[in-house]
Amino acid sequence: MNENSYTPGAGASCIIVIFGITGDLAQKKIIPAIYNLYCLGLLNEKTHIVGVGRRQYEAGEYSEYLNASIEAASEKRSFCLVNERTRSEFISLNSYLPCDFSRLESYSFIRESLKKIAVDHKICNFLYYLSTPPQNFIEIISNIGASGLSKPDFLDISCAGSFVRVVIEKPYGNDYNSARDLNEKILSIFSENQVYRIDHYLGKETVQNIMVLRFLNNIFEPVWNQKYIDNVEIKVYESGGIGKRANYFDKTGIIRDIIQNHSLQMLSLLAMEPTISMAPEDVRNEKLKVLSAIRPFDCQNPESQIVAGQYGKGNAAGKPVSSYLDEPGVTPGSRTETFAAIKLFIDNWRFSGVPFYLVAGKRMPERVAEAVVTFKPVPHLIFRNMCCRKDILPNKLIIRIQPDEGISLKIFSKTPGFGMDLRPITLGFNYAANNEIMPEPYERLILDASNGDSALFMRSDEIEAAWKYITPITECLKEGRIELKKYKANGEIPDFKSLVCSNNQ
Amino acid sequence: MNENSYTPGAGASCIIVIFGITGDLAQKKIIPAIYNLYCLGLLNEKTHIVGVGRRQYEAGEYSEYLNASIEAASEKRSFCLVNERTRSEFISLNSYLPCDFSRLESYSFIRESLKKIAVDHKICNFLYYLSTPPQNFIEIISNIGASGLSKPDFLDISCAGSFVRVVIEKPYGNDYNSARDLNEKILSIFSENQVYRIDHYLGKETVQNIMVLRFLNNIFEPVWNQKYIDNVEIKVYESGGIGKRANYFDKTGIIRDIIQNHSLQMLSLLAMEPTISMAPEDVRNEKLKVLSAIRPFDCQNPESQIVAGQYGKGNAAGKPVSSYLDEPGVTPGSRTETFAAIKLFIDNWRFSGVPFYLVAGKRMPERVAEAVVTFKPVPHLIFRNMCCRKDILPNKLIIRIQPDEGISLKIFSKTPGFGMDLRPITLGFNYAANNEIMPEPYERLILDASNGDSALFMRSDEIEAAWKYITPITECLKEGRIELKKYKANGEIPDFKSLVCSNNQ
Repeated sequence: MNENSYTPGAGASCIIVIFGITGDLAQKKIIPAIYNLYCLGLLNEKTHIVGVGRRQYEAGEYSEYLNASIEAASEKRSFCLVNERTRSEFISLNSYLPCDFSRLESYSFIRESLKKIAVDHKICNFLYYLSTPPQNFIEIISNIGASGLSKPDFLDISCAGSFVRVVIEKPYGNDYNSARDLNEKILSIFSENQVYRIDHYLGKETVQNIMVLRFLNNIFEPVWNQKYIDNVEIKVYESGGIGKRANYFDKTGIIRDIIQNHSLQMLSLLAMEPTISMAPEDVRNEKLKVLSAIRPFDCQNPESQIVAGQYGKGNAAGKPVSSYLDEPGVTPGSRTETFAAIKLFIDNWRFSGVPFYLVAGKRMPERVAEAVVTFKPVPHLIFRNMCCRKDILPNKLIIRIQPDEGISLKIFSKTPGFGMDLRPITLGFNYAANNEIMPEPYERLILDASNGDSALFMRSDEIEAAWKYITPITECLKEGRIELKKYKANGEIPDFKSLVCSNNQ
Repeated sequence: MNENSYTPGAGASCIIVIFGITGDLAQKKIIPAIYNLYCLGLLNEKTHIVGVGRRQYEAGEYSEYLNASIEAASEKRSFCLVNERTRSEFISLNSYLPCDFSRLESYSFIRESLKKIAVDHKICNFLYYLSTPPQNFIEIISNIGASGLSKPDFLDISCAGSFVRVVIEKPYGNDYNSARDLNEKILSIFSENQVYRIDHYLGKETVQNIMVLRFLNNIFEPVWNQKYIDNVEIKVYESGGIGKRANYFDKTGIIRDIIQNHSLQMLSLLAMEPTISMAPEDVRNEKLKVLSAIRPFDCQNPESQIVAGQYGKGNAAGKPVSSYLDEPGVTPGSRTETFAAIKLFIDNWRFSGVPFYLVAGKRMPERVAEAVVTFKPVPHLIFRNMCCRKDILPNKLIIRIQPDEGISLKIFSKTPGFGMDLRPITLGFNYAANNEIMPEPYERLILDASNGDSALFMRSDEIEAAWKYITPITECLKEGRIELKKYKANGEIPDFKSLVCSNNQ
């Protein structure tokens, strides 16, 4: 492990209260992330973790649950070796509180318990983490408010500068109205600067690096506009299907699940103007400007703006996999999209006329997330052996999010030899080849939230702007006005050339 | 060997007549290059090679000489295996003609011999290659002219479209006047399009690639000017000393030996405007414009334009090496420079105010030839942890000529980890890592000359323009008006920060 990869600053002292501790996300991501922060010495010495859930645990069961969660995750993060002692030390920082999320009395119990923990451990700060299903968000927030937990005042002791912050998991609403309602509710109880809305893509190294690449390298910014950029493609391809998530996914679809958050967040980082500083509000203001400038979707002419698809059966790794409609839990005849390619324009000075393609799908032939910035070809060809424009492959800057995180620049070069033959080559940098250790997004984001750094979290107006663009698309789909192409699972990417070739500008 | 690296087109049918066949250059470079073209199937089937020299060989001695030359060189070009049969087939294409370069009668003998070879082998084209010491150039050219060898008319047979071409080795003159005299003499006997002046750097893959990089990649050209480029450095560092070449080098110095030709040729390729096509005259016209736009050297203020040096003793690979003055053959007290760093400006629209540094030296700590284009830093810093300009390393595009030919782009990136630490990374492409076979410059250039492609050769006016800039510098040195810094052989690069910091624009 390269210790230098980590900054010395640890998180702030706080009691982390995780609502929905028994859920999948807490088990697979949040508990391991906090444990890894602990191993790395990044968890403040004065930290206590309180799991909140519906279950009643017998003595010792909760520790076993935490143990199992840490062990299962440690295979992927081998640098943080699980040894008996570290693990039991960490587990001793944890408590569990049973809670019926809908009953106000449960929150009185939580309040009294937190008061006691605060006094016992001399910690006056609180980070609530809502990792429950989204339908519980509003009731939990309301009850937190009603029981006085939204401000540190509920403590009998007084501590200078203490804070209460709340981290909200995705999905954050399922359309414009529900997101606005959720914002309204949350902001009636918390102030904006207490709220940390997660999109874990923002915690990924290569996504965070987009701003560095663009604003610390003077060779990119001069060509980062409609004069030199031909198009931008943001791909999120998954090779897996929906697994056991039919209950969630069938109501959601890929556009809400991926494009509304991950893809639009990457889009805003790729397209935004240089900020004044990295201060969260500076960054969010610029991102919001991009989202607000997206030309609205027009359901009158969907075929020039979107291609949607749903996977049929196919083969993955030599084994047959079922079609979406045959997945357990999917509504018979469901029209939920598992693939979408959306073409959009950002109507501003910098990107006027440049198509952005947001493409996401499940059961794709490969698993890859990347942003590809394709530059325009040279204006004049001086090389005789190239007859025409079609012979030139344009320059591309590729920011690879996963797997094989890296940056590559595709350029043209002379083929070594006696002629003047030309070929594309790649100037590349690959994190793995460089033995880089990449923090897990959840580690990064929990640390940032505990420290009050909201730069990598979404502000209420950003979320609403994203939904404002997305909602007409999902409505148009729901109304059956967008064709749903079948595609072979793990075998093909639905053809979206029609988007590329349609010359709407 | 990757056969695809080579274009199918072979050279034109011709009799290659090499004046100075017994010299070092012919032995080490020209004979092996022609042999390799033969192995690669790139020598036209109707080729004959005539060595011309002062020596009288006994029967079989010349074949032995060719044999030895091929064998010694084959170690470096292992793809072209030397087997007995190929070698003896190749040697059967060779003849030797003894000649006293100064006596016209020798050329009558050559003429009659060439006539016979032409008839015997049915070849009507001639490529004369002057690889003698430069003091012989004028007499050889004059005698070629006087004996009627400069046009194919001297043949008794007539062939349609036959040609006579002449390749002239470097050094091409040793100052502006001598180069102009040489041009005048040559152009009184040959027309410009018959003359191929060699600078073998132009035959190097990565040098040829400069035009491809610049003019087939739309991301570079928009930033390739004074708005975005801070400075350009062209380095040619040799780790060796002058070896047995004191006789030549002590009269020449590094400025004439390297900078006047290699460095200025690279400069012109790096700085020129986009050409209309790759046609030789289009390329040469643009290169000439750059050379003509170099601001003249001012001997009144040499210290802001040049740092010169001469190596003292030192250690190379653990063994002591002698100082320049102690090298065998060097004039006692010689003031010949073995190192020079020259700062120059190109007074045109594109590069106004951008310093170009031409740096070359012998007995440098490392052997490296590369062009480094350094871009200006970003205009505004959005990252808090960077306090000031000095924290930013600017973007650099590095074109590595030797060793490890390649292209790399140095950019800034986020350091993986929990902070927002920043660090430079390299997007790189390396020919060797890609198992590329690089043609030797002499192979490429002999093939091009036989095919009448003069794009990689220097035109008379280019050479004169280069000397016009260089001559005042060498005069200023000769007059003792430029300090000669001693530096430790293989231990240090003379400090030329004074040039960088002097703000003459």
